[in-house]
Amino acid sequence: MPIYKAPLADVEFVLDSIVGVKALSTLPGFEDATPDLIRQILEEGAKLCEEVLFPLNQSGDAEGCSFENGVVRTPAGFKEAYQTYLEGGWTGLSCDPAYGGQGLPKLVNTMLEEFICSANLSFGMYPGLSLGAYNALSLYGSDELKARFLPKLVDGTWSGTMCLTEPHCGTDLGLIRTKAVPGEDGAYAITGTKIFISAGEHDLTENILHLVLARLPDAPAGTKGISLFLVPKFLPRADGTPGPRNGVACGSIEHKMGIKASSTCVMNFDEATGWLVGEPHKGMRAMFVMMNAARLAVGIQGLGVAEVAYQNAVAYARDRLQGRSLKGTKAPDKPADPIIVHPDVRRNLLTARAFTEGARALGALVAFHLDLAEKHPDARQRQESDEFVQLMTPIVKALFTDIGFDAANIAVQVHGGHGFIWETGVEQYVRDARITQIYEGTNGIQALDLVGRKMGQDMGRLLRRFFHPVQAELEAAMDDDGLLEFAGPLAKAFGKLQQATALIAQKGMKDPEEAGAAASDYLRMFGLVALGWMWLRSVKAARAKLAAGEGDAAFLDAKVKTARFFMAKLLPQTGALFTTILSGARPLMEMEEAAF
Amino acid sequence: MPIYKAPLADVEFVLDSIVGVKALSTLPGFEDATPDLIRQILEEGAKLCEEVLFPLNQSGDAEGCSFENGVVRTPAGFKEAYQTYLEGGWTGLSCDPAYGGQGLPKLVNTMLEEFICSANLSFGMYPGLSLGAYNALSLYGSDELKARFLPKLVDGTWSGTMCLTEPHCGTDLGLIRTKAVPGEDGAYAITGTKIFISAGEHDLTENILHLVLARLPDAPAGTKGISLFLVPKFLPRADGTPGPRNGVACGSIEHKMGIKASSTCVMNFDEATGWLVGEPHKGMRAMFVMMNAARLAVGIQGLGVAEVAYQNAVAYARDRLQGRSLKGTKAPDKPADPIIVHPDVRRNLLTARAFTEGARALGALVAFHLDLAEKHPDARQRQESDEFVQLMTPIVKALFTDIGFDAANIAVQVHGGHGFIWETGVEQYVRDARITQIYEGTNGIQALDLVGRKMGQDMGRLLRRFFHPVQAELEAAMDDDGLLEFAGPLAKAFGKLQQATALIAQKGMKDPEEAGAAASDYLRMFGLVALGWMWLRSVKAARAKLAAGEGDAAFLDAKVKTARFFMAKLLPQTGALFTTILSGARPLMEMEEAAF
Repeated sequence: MPIYKAPLADVEFVLDSIVGVKALSTLPGFEDATPDLIRQILEEGAKLCEEVLFPLNQSGDAEGCSFENGVVRTPAGFKEAYQTYLEGGWTGLSCDPAYGGQGLPKLVNTMLEEFICSANLSFGMYPGLSLGAYNALSLYGSDELKARFLPKLVDGTWSGTMCLTEPHCGTDLGLIRTKAVPGEDGAYAITGTKIFISAGEHDLTENILHLVLARLPDAPAGTKGISLFLVPKFLPRADGTPGPRNGVACGSIEHKMGIKASSTCVMNFDEATGWLVGEPHKGMRAMFVMMNAARLAVGIQGLGVAEVAYQNAVAYARDRLQGRSLKGTKAPDKPADPIIVHPDVRRNLLTARAFTEGARALGALVAFHLDLAEKHPDARQRQESDEFVQLMTPIVKALFTDIGFDAANIAVQVHGGHGFIWETGVEQYVRDARITQIYEGTNGIQALDLVGRKMGQDMGRLLRRFFHPVQAELEAAMDDDGLLEFAGPLAKAFGKLQQATALIAQKGMKDPEEAGAAASDYLRMFGLVALGWMWLRSVKAARAKLAAGEGDAAFLDAKVKTARFFMAKLLPQTGALFTTILSGARPLMEMEEAAF
Repeated sequence: MPIYKAPLADVEFVLDSIVGVKALSTLPGFEDATPDLIRQILEEGAKLCEEVLFPLNQSGDAEGCSFENGVVRTPAGFKEAYQTYLEGGWTGLSCDPAYGGQGLPKLVNTMLEEFICSANLSFGMYPGLSLGAYNALSLYGSDELKARFLPKLVDGTWSGTMCLTEPHCGTDLGLIRTKAVPGEDGAYAITGTKIFISAGEHDLTENILHLVLARLPDAPAGTKGISLFLVPKFLPRADGTPGPRNGVACGSIEHKMGIKASSTCVMNFDEATGWLVGEPHKGMRAMFVMMNAARLAVGIQGLGVAEVAYQNAVAYARDRLQGRSLKGTKAPDKPADPIIVHPDVRRNLLTARAFTEGARALGALVAFHLDLAEKHPDARQRQESDEFVQLMTPIVKALFTDIGFDAANIAVQVHGGHGFIWETGVEQYVRDARITQIYEGTNGIQALDLVGRKMGQDMGRLLRRFFHPVQAELEAAMDDDGLLEFAGPLAKAFGKLQQATALIAQKGMKDPEEAGAAASDYLRMFGLVALGWMWLRSVKAARAKLAAGEGDAAFLDAKVKTARFFMAKLLPQTGALFTTILSGARPLMEMEEAAF
């Protein structure tokens, strides 16, 4: 049976030492969000995840969702768990108080999302999608739509979806065929088929609000002719209760590799009534709002799986007795030593750990800038934070989901044959994590977003939001003898990242395939340097606390050692990535299509 | 629906140009094994795999094996498919004619095994385990046991298993508790529980022969007190037909992540009658014979999955229309270009391809040396070939299974969301491939075998079987202008491998944890250089054929381009691995166990 405890101590370290969470409560609207309150909320959230959501993770995988006559049933216990979740007020944690939300920082919600995704990734999909719908509607919906629908999403009695993909198009939304025909009363009739709709149909809420991309009759071809519509499952009555059934129905659910307790639906729209969200033909803009928030959330899913996988790998490595330490018996009272004595087992565990803790720090920093971008009184800081978030979004999405998948596989590997058995519980993490590398834009698409959109934007201004602080912190660290062993390798990798950036920008200008060919290697390299930055910050903070005699010495000492592991064993991948980037597009492009 | 065609053209290229298959028919006993005959056999084998085994792969995964009252049923169609397999004489292809086998080279069987594992990995487990039992019994069984049991394994009417693992021990077989008590008639009574027994119980054959590790009453502790026994499910009558049921029964089957059509059994032995195979307390030696053959076979499983995954990824990438080429529309008559135009999709496809074809070449070369080690008239050549096989066994097992898993994941990734859906068929490859990195010794254990046993053996003599030919071929290639672009990067990686070897040998002498810490990185580095060697041979042969106007020019041109991709995009990983090896054991070992 797998185990899970929310990593509250590490979250506190990250909030305090990496992010400087105290600054949050100085922002207008966040006056109450003191470190103390945040700690209390996260402790409550941890309990919910450990005690309510986690016990349903394996049973949810075994049972899956069922589909019969258009009705989708979630696995046993999900309905009750969702009710507990809703009653705890978790659905509206970071939502606008004007609509009933608690108005807490997104940073807090992000930390909570990690716990949820560790405990039960499938469950997390339902409120996660609702939050995506909330975001799009808040930003682009009319006041009337907002007043009518947002409170229902915030209190969790209704849920949301994002209906983008169609059978013939996922990445290339310009090919969308779903149609919207204007009616008499300002509403539209939506017709078409959407696939892979997470939470498209289920039994957790009394109504479901679909945000649907479709084409108006006068729409130009391609992505410039796509509009966004709100299509409820039940048309609300004047009193706000769900009224008559709308023309939207679930046609079937998918049989998937993982996240089996999350319903993935084919949704058929047959002249369903919907309302325009935002301007006609400007649906892609609103979609990108949902998408960018969703991409960060998917990155956090990867982090969540990585954490729970790591915890289970460690527990097994401590427990399983097999062989003796290469340096002689460590546990003479036992028939064999626990496998955690073996260097290769430690290599596996520390890989998962260094990636997970580094990702937690980076994820928190990005979420903190989400809050600054929204609430900081200084417009310049708002903009700079927004630019940082934009730049880091594809990196968080792709890097963290790769980390989640790798950590899940590490957990299986450490378990040996037992890892392959369903009952052990860790192979589920591999199957669940696998989708995170795919949905909300495959990780290859994230890489293209980084080199194609983010890199060149405003003459590289987004890049400076990363390069400048890293440069400054490196320079300071190089003068500190105690940090030199960490700053040295990071400076080397950072230098190569700068060179790679210049090279790709230059070559990509002449030949976009050069940028495309380098994209995935570049994103990985960027991500590794970003994690190295987080480890430099972590080790700096840990050393300062140790010197001052503050905090848990064993915890802080482990931070320093994990940072050393990261610099020695993981960051060097940047060297190989740099070499492959240098080799350019020709090795990819010269093969004739017919020869594959 | 997934597709599969056996890669006959590439196999022919490998046999002809990498291995020099013609030499086989000059060996005593292999006179008939001409290239023509081998081609015919492989064409027949390809048909069997494509038409009989492959169509049962998805249905076998969906249905799985069932267990009821001790009886295991394989999925629908498996029994009939096994009958076809048996009637075709495939079970005894490389077995000794003295026992009814066809006496063909192991090389031929290895190529066939690749096809089987591409077509239906679960199915392949049943005859694969029988072959393992055949090997151990041939080498260590008494003449009486051989005469009585080998013909049944060879004609496939009976099957075999390897019963090693127990609930508390897998890697560390010294902990085995199963007991063997001598009886009156030279037989033994075997009692104990074995787990993870592939093909332990099933409905394909009329009898099952278990090769069981157990302890005699006077056995010394640890691995020096383990003996090997043959324990049939049904005790054979004098006429060779299965007689009374023996005291061995399947207690349950496992619910697994993949290879669901392969039964994985808990086997309970309760005073079951068995016969000693080989000498008392020398069971580990016989076990290693089974194990080494099995490790190569598992490596070939990885190759098989990689090939079928690659084929499906290519088919989808040609078919799926999404987006336009970065250099402008390529398919103006279609709503979008096929995704194979995109550099990142090509990077994925070529990664799978370069690894797969390189592994095929290396796997064939190792199998060729298996044949030389057995049949070559010159004792020195026999020994050198045996040493080469010993050295390469852990590399083939670990590297190829990592390649299989990675290629399977590439296929899923190229399919996008569709790859996560069961019906598409590629996520099964991920689930099936995952076990190959674990069983027959996890890949971490393979790495320890390489640095701990193989590296130092006879003052590094095994290593010379690899280093000498690579050195010689590199020197020749460096003088050839056309090969320089390939030989250059390989020479650099080879030099680092030599340095790493010296370093690990030196540091490992003083501190075995230094060798253990480097092991996995070193195996990967070694494997990449070995594949680079195969690509150098491939490109040399392809260029020679192109210059002579022989062969399929498009095929040969693709070889050269894939070699270029390998050198540019995959081989550079050796640089990072070298750096991590240099950083030593401290970053792994300094963390307190309690701090994990």
